[in-house]
Amino acid sequence: VSAPSPDTPTATAGASSEDPLAVALVEEVGASHVLTDADLRAPFETDWTRRFSGTARLVVRPADTAEVVAVLRRCHEAGVPVVPQGGNTGLVGGGVPRGGEVVVSLSRLDELGEVDRQASQVTAGAGVSLATLRAHAAEAGLNYPVDFAARDSATVGGMVATNAGGIRVLRYGATRSQVVGIEAVTVDGRVVSRMAGLVKDNAGYDLAALLTGSEGTLAVITRARLRLVPSFGERVVALVAVEDIDAAQRLLAQVRAGAPSLEAAEVFFAEGLALVLRHAGGITPFATDHPVYLLLECAAHRDPTEELADALGEAAEVLDVAVATDGPSRARLWSLRESHTEAINAEGIPIKLDVSLPADAMVTFVERVHTVVAEVAWSARAILFGHLGDGNLHVNVLGADPDGHEVDDAVLRLTVQLGGSISAEHGIGQAKLDWLPLYREATDLELTGSIKQALDPAGLLNPGVLVPRPARAGHRPP
Amino acid sequence: VSAPSPDTPTATAGASSEDPLAVALVEEVGASHVLTDADLRAPFETDWTRRFSGTARLVVRPADTAEVVAVLRRCHEAGVPVVPQGGNTGLVGGGVPRGGEVVVSLSRLDELGEVDRQASQVTAGAGVSLATLRAHAAEAGLNYPVDFAARDSATVGGMVATNAGGIRVLRYGATRSQVVGIEAVTVDGRVVSRMAGLVKDNAGYDLAALLTGSEGTLAVITRARLRLVPSFGERVVALVAVEDIDAAQRLLAQVRAGAPSLEAAEVFFAEGLALVLRHAGGITPFATDHPVYLLLECAAHRDPTEELADALGEAAEVLDVAVATDGPSRARLWSLRESHTEAINAEGIPIKLDVSLPADAMVTFVERVHTVVAEVAWSARAILFGHLGDGNLHVNVLGADPDGHEVDDAVLRLTVQLGGSISAEHGIGQAKLDWLPLYREATDLELTGSIKQALDPAGLLNPGVLVPRPARAGHRPP
Repeated sequence: VSAPSPDTPTATAGASSEDPLAVALVEEVGASHVLTDADLRAPFETDWTRRFSGTARLVVRPADTAEVVAVLRRCHEAGVPVVPQGGNTGLVGGGVPRGGEVVVSLSRLDELGEVDRQASQVTAGAGVSLATLRAHAAEAGLNYPVDFAARDSATVGGMVATNAGGIRVLRYGATRSQVVGIEAVTVDGRVVSRMAGLVKDNAGYDLAALLTGSEGTLAVITRARLRLVPSFGERVVALVAVEDIDAAQRLLAQVRAGAPSLEAAEVFFAEGLALVLRHAGGITPFATDHPVYLLLECAAHRDPTEELADALGEAAEVLDVAVATDGPSRARLWSLRESHTEAINAEGIPIKLDVSLPADAMVTFVERVHTVVAEVAWSARAILFGHLGDGNLHVNVLGADPDGHEVDDAVLRLTVQLGGSISAEHGIGQAKLDWLPLYREATDLELTGSIKQALDPAGLLNPGVLVPRPARAGHRPP
Repeated sequence: VSAPSPDTPTATAGASSEDPLAVALVEEVGASHVLTDADLRAPFETDWTRRFSGTARLVVRPADTAEVVAVLRRCHEAGVPVVPQGGNTGLVGGGVPRGGEVVVSLSRLDELGEVDRQASQVTAGAGVSLATLRAHAAEAGLNYPVDFAARDSATVGGMVATNAGGIRVLRYGATRSQVVGIEAVTVDGRVVSRMAGLVKDNAGYDLAALLTGSEGTLAVITRARLRLVPSFGERVVALVAVEDIDAAQRLLAQVRAGAPSLEAAEVFFAEGLALVLRHAGGITPFATDHPVYLLLECAAHRDPTEELADALGEAAEVLDVAVATDGPSRARLWSLRESHTEAINAEGIPIKLDVSLPADAMVTFVERVHTVVAEVAWSARAILFGHLGDGNLHVNVLGADPDGHEVDDAVLRLTVQLGGSISAEHGIGQAKLDWLPLYREATDLELTGSIKQALDPAGLLNPGVLVPRPARAGHRPP
């Protein structure tokens, strides 16, 4: 397969093309949904971080599962690699071409079924946005529990393919925990469908769990059956100042045991708060600065304030606490955490890492990460924040060369030394592939390679993403 | 591989054997842990249902992961199939030999780590029993949320391999939801280990989710890292009488939405209750009989009675209700549900099926199952009970030939017609393998076969279990 040169004149969408694959795909999905013109392809070729970009042979936009089947058959026959793409909001380059692939955009698969109130489930096409899904659930008085900032663009297909996380994983799990059914198309155009929404189904391997988080490397996800959870009307948010991360963890363990209504437990530090106050215009509720802040949210049908207060008790770890129950006050406390990305970006271009740590390694990581960053970039500083309840820290490094790899390498090596994961929720994509052999042992990568080989023998599904090439992975060449 | 004849004299455990594989395994695990004598093998050759039985070439009892590696390498080199075995409490013949295999008993891998209170997790060897695990968690003030009657014998390895369910799946999910880490040995003796207990880890395929429920066909599970949940001191049980299964489902949807402390929702019917009252000595709290009974349990730190009462509200579906908060009263209500198995066994030898249905097919299933059973066995009657919250019904048929397949076939065909699963929680094993192609579509079985082929190319791991043979599955011969 040869990649077209970007400056070769190509036909506009709807017009004929000299590429025989384009001609074939036009037969399957119609001329207006095969984009060969560079201008039309462009939005599909670069991800929103602008760090990952490649030229696609063409972009094809099937309307439904049958058209996905037809498209994949044509590409498979032609031996052309494909890159499945959702809302293009990924952070690791997992949904954009490396060069010469067909981008299969799933955005037109936007059918959204009626909410099944009895089962508390809904069926959504791969192209349904998170915002649409959440609004649809809310209309039925229910809640789709995964949520994050890219909700208007991120799609169900992409969220399932990347096992998207967010701030409610503590209570509800990540996307894999919501997927009660999946429909997907294999690389050669066969449909596998487990869409009955069965909560218990011990009849074979859990294909839905395997495909969730597989980043488009095993099959193209076309629909999902998703669980919904009750919608709670009463919420309380507490911002708790503590001395260090150890105190934050002890306090959190106590609150988790005592308050089953806990649904988020976020952490940030003095440095991050200072940036937020400087750049994002937030207001701290505290008279003095503190080293570490733990933001807790409980949600229930009845006011959970007392439950949270009881769970916090008279804990010695609490240096100061601010509690908010009404919407605007809760939003003000949340904004101190949620404005971190904006505030950091205002300060400079950060290197962004996303790691998770075992509970007993969190303290050591937080102590040592600043040192390992300083060792490779003396002028750099690491701003930490994230989902303490999941052991998940976002490490944003300012003042280092964003195109260099030394900081990434130093932080990820520290993470692996401490038993942590090099990607908590963003995935591997292209961005973390070089570090995967650092994290996963040889046997683990061999099994990964075997599973990939089993479902995509020719390696046409999203090549260069998630699965290390055999030489690097250390497994036997075929 | 030729199976030894059962009446061939074999060496006793600890003694030498003429079988060169036995000699090799004695080198690895010691003479006292290689059982070649028929009397010593016997308990490992028949499962506790006594329906599944086969002669093993020998039984080997490794002490730890390193010995499992050595054992699997030896068997792999010899090309001998192996059957991993836990507590031997399975119901579908998934853990006993068919003839000539080496049974690898994991019961000696009974190491149990200290409870990590901060992470709310524990590491358990494959041979740790459910009862031991639960007691260990309770000592730390926490709860391992999966529980079922075979707790004294069932082991962690078997529970993970079969994705064991039980009565708390509604709130906590089945075993797969508890597995935050796994260690397993491949068929050729390589160790894969993801034991750091990372809640978020989007770095490759979810091998733990894939191995959970794979019934020993992909790898031998040696250890698991398991999540623990808070232990609740306050409980309320309500037995609610309703007119039909439709009313039970409507009421349950209402209670689920209104009472987040709900952790079990069981159903049984007038016929089953009559058997329980006749054979098991229970006492009904109601003055009159009712068609359907819904048993609800809520658990929380504070008395959840009001939450449950509010969630039930003034629902028209409630014909009668009995509420119990103290331990003995709760146990009396629970015994009406839990004595079903004992009462049915006292009445005769039942055919036992375990199906799950989509929420919108439950009513039709309950209406039609009696007819389809009567059509193939006019004197038979079906007793239904189970986990309504998971759409999971146990269908026990009395008065039919337990060795015949007509009743199984009729009930499973009805289930599949209605979009349900032929195995909700018991698994496929040997027992349901013939029906798997009825349930799973050809592509689904092809993917199953591909995954099996990828991880166990020679087909040495638990052959005859879960994975249909190629001809039957309809996928291409290799």
